[in-house]
Amino acid sequence: MGFDVVIHNGTLVTVDRHMRVIENGWIGIEADVIRAVESGRPGTPPPGAGLTIDAAGGIVMPGLVNTHTHLPMSLFRGLADDLPLEEWLDDHIFPAEARFIRPDTVHWGTLLSCAELLLSGTTCCCGGYFHEDAVARAVAETGMRAVLAQGVIDFPAPGVPDPAQNIVHARVYAHKWKGGNPLITPSIFCHSPYTCSDDTLKAAKAEAEASGLLYQVHVAETRFERDQSLKERGMTPVARLDRLGLIDRRTLMAHCVWVDDADIDIIARRNGAVSHCPESNMKLASGSAPVAGMLKAGIRVSLGTDGCASNNNLDLFGEMDTAAKLHKLTTGNPTTLGAGSALSMATIDGARAIGLADRIGSLEIGKQADVIILEARAPHLTPLYHPESHIVYAACGADVRHVLVAGRQVVKNRRMLTLNVPEIMDRVNAIAREIRSNQ
Amino acid sequence: MGFDVVIHNGTLVTVDRHMRVIENGWIGIEADVIRAVESGRPGTPPPGAGLTIDAAGGIVMPGLVNTHTHLPMSLFRGLADDLPLEEWLDDHIFPAEARFIRPDTVHWGTLLSCAELLLSGTTCCCGGYFHEDAVARAVAETGMRAVLAQGVIDFPAPGVPDPAQNIVHARVYAHKWKGGNPLITPSIFCHSPYTCSDDTLKAAKAEAEASGLLYQVHVAETRFERDQSLKERGMTPVARLDRLGLIDRRTLMAHCVWVDDADIDIIARRNGAVSHCPESNMKLASGSAPVAGMLKAGIRVSLGTDGCASNNNLDLFGEMDTAAKLHKLTTGNPTTLGAGSALSMATIDGARAIGLADRIGSLEIGKQADVIILEARAPHLTPLYHPESHIVYAACGADVRHVLVAGRQVVKNRRMLTLNVPEIMDRVNAIAREIRSNQ
Repeated sequence: MGFDVVIHNGTLVTVDRHMRVIENGWIGIEADVIRAVESGRPGTPPPGAGLTIDAAGGIVMPGLVNTHTHLPMSLFRGLADDLPLEEWLDDHIFPAEARFIRPDTVHWGTLLSCAELLLSGTTCCCGGYFHEDAVARAVAETGMRAVLAQGVIDFPAPGVPDPAQNIVHARVYAHKWKGGNPLITPSIFCHSPYTCSDDTLKAAKAEAEASGLLYQVHVAETRFERDQSLKERGMTPVARLDRLGLIDRRTLMAHCVWVDDADIDIIARRNGAVSHCPESNMKLASGSAPVAGMLKAGIRVSLGTDGCASNNNLDLFGEMDTAAKLHKLTTGNPTTLGAGSALSMATIDGARAIGLADRIGSLEIGKQADVIILEARAPHLTPLYHPESHIVYAACGADVRHVLVAGRQVVKNRRMLTLNVPEIMDRVNAIAREIRSNQ
Repeated sequence: MGFDVVIHNGTLVTVDRHMRVIENGWIGIEADVIRAVESGRPGTPPPGAGLTIDAAGGIVMPGLVNTHTHLPMSLFRGLADDLPLEEWLDDHIFPAEARFIRPDTVHWGTLLSCAELLLSGTTCCCGGYFHEDAVARAVAETGMRAVLAQGVIDFPAPGVPDPAQNIVHARVYAHKWKGGNPLITPSIFCHSPYTCSDDTLKAAKAEAEASGLLYQVHVAETRFERDQSLKERGMTPVARLDRLGLIDRRTLMAHCVWVDDADIDIIARRNGAVSHCPESNMKLASGSAPVAGMLKAGIRVSLGTDGCASNNNLDLFGEMDTAAKLHKLTTGNPTTLGAGSALSMATIDGARAIGLADRIGSLEIGKQADVIILEARAPHLTPLYHPESHIVYAACGADVRHVLVAGRQVVKNRRMLTLNVPEIMDRVNAIAREIRSNQ
């Protein structure tokens, strides 16, 4: 038989258009592509393959897609919590970024985040930061899939001391990474309507469009931002982006907490995508995005952890659980955002939001083999009535046992195969000692 | 040296009155009691002991206290989710309880829940159900500490077909377990103001008081309950309990979602305690308890998971995280319920709420040695700036490596020492097949 990898003896949660769940199924992989998604036949062994992975009765599902994060910020995990937003940013995060964000620190922080993401079942992430070339080089070492953007902001930033050069930096980065690595897709991240001029917002979009890249932007994260926009410009942040012609199918808007019905209508009509970050929005007391309304309007809503300085981990299982519960609470309706919807947001809808739905997000023939296998033989996952329910409400990242990206196994029995995790932790701890001594 | 157990080479998060954190500390245990809580001296080995546990640079902290759960309900984990409350209860949970809750099923469900609780760092739980004698016998096998109540309700219940006998059943159970096992404290759980008459509510309290036991009751969980009470009785559920003289220092009220300022004032004046169950309240769309106001009023607020049919796990680390984030969101203030407060709710305040603060809830000399050790050498817990922050915002139950209850090690390297977990899971799976075939 011609499969390079076969995964068998598991419950397949495909997240395909029929949300098929196949008990005792198997999948066959050739090179980086899924070539078979099948029910097992009692008494019939799975086909032979170069590598056979026994799911041991666990759950086999598409790798998770985290659509909003800032990989190097794991350096600041738990550095300062429970503070007013301005104090957190002005007294802790911004000074730490100004002083400690360099290509070498970004490298180790990114490796740490990728290890955490892969070990907890996320096979693709999307986001942006500064020194993004160093970020992308680090991600390339890990075997992870990612959409990675150089940040654009109208202030001096790490690696971009002169804001007048922000677009140039983004262009150089994007051109370097365009088409260079099948797992890494460059993007441009224009920080936000409140930190960028109209010209910057438009120039960044033009640059992204010139290369067909995803345009990312933080939008309407806080009430302050929304109110300031209304006061100073007479329109909401979403309306402003729309006025500038910046919302389309290649625009991913992170947060969208303070959006009204008109904003939702705009995003839906323009076919913009949203990255919902419930844990970060709760922890920073920003608010709760009106996700139920967005979904009703047909918007592609995906899930993000945000940088792990404001979360403080990158476990997308937790994010599914929080999202499903939060929107039941805010709508007063326990049927809101069921397990299947939360699972879709973290997989296929994440892929749709970042323009990769033809390649990832579900277990389907022809798609890239980004696959994770969850242990199901554990007290907190017993008994098993509905796999989707367990994935969203009972499991956590630590239940992920094996991870494949593009057909390559990167996590085996909860251990990274592609990275020297102890060395990464030692390096990050050394950077953290520097940071702490300057607090 | 005379210690039976020494735990060394860890960061002690004591949760004592000064919230002391001791880097490179050690604790000494004699029999079931903590006899030393010390800083380690560089180059000096810890004192000898019968058993020396190397915390390997991890976090050593008091075991968590889960103040509201229904242990056997793990049998129904994920049986039916994302449904309207009435449909969930009437079409799924109540019929399953009526048909499948027997002493033998309660036994296996309880063992499963205890395994989950202990493996995720909870060393003491409080709650109630039916067939509680079978529950208590099962808990006694596990080595866990618990406050366990026979349920009282004015409807036919499993094991109590005639509601007129509900108090008698509770009395017989309580007398049997009073003083019989140092780890198990009996209690009486009067279901709620909306399912029990004034007479039942009072008789159950009188029975509890006659033996100095904790009186547990669900209060103001849903808006429907609060509105019905206002309509039919002209007062809130809390006011009704107070009118009946039922709120005092030995009363633990679960949920308290729909309580107003006057209710909070009553609870504070009467010195009642609250078990806050944020994940269950969110998942069932019940609402968000006004915890910030309760804490401000000086109420003993603790944390509970509720039964895991409505959660769907028993991981109190997740509950700390959710509580800390939820109340930042609901108050719009990121300084609300900081990591230290959430940690206190899950430890010392839990102990206070169930009347065991003189024995458990912190690492202090003279207290029972209920101790857990968290792994800290993992990507998602790196770097470590503030241990309390990691405990609440970054860790999960799977990070718990060792667990001791009353000086006895019950979990070692993430494995239960006191239970045959595979057998428990097999038994529960067999019961679940029965349940599923009747859905």
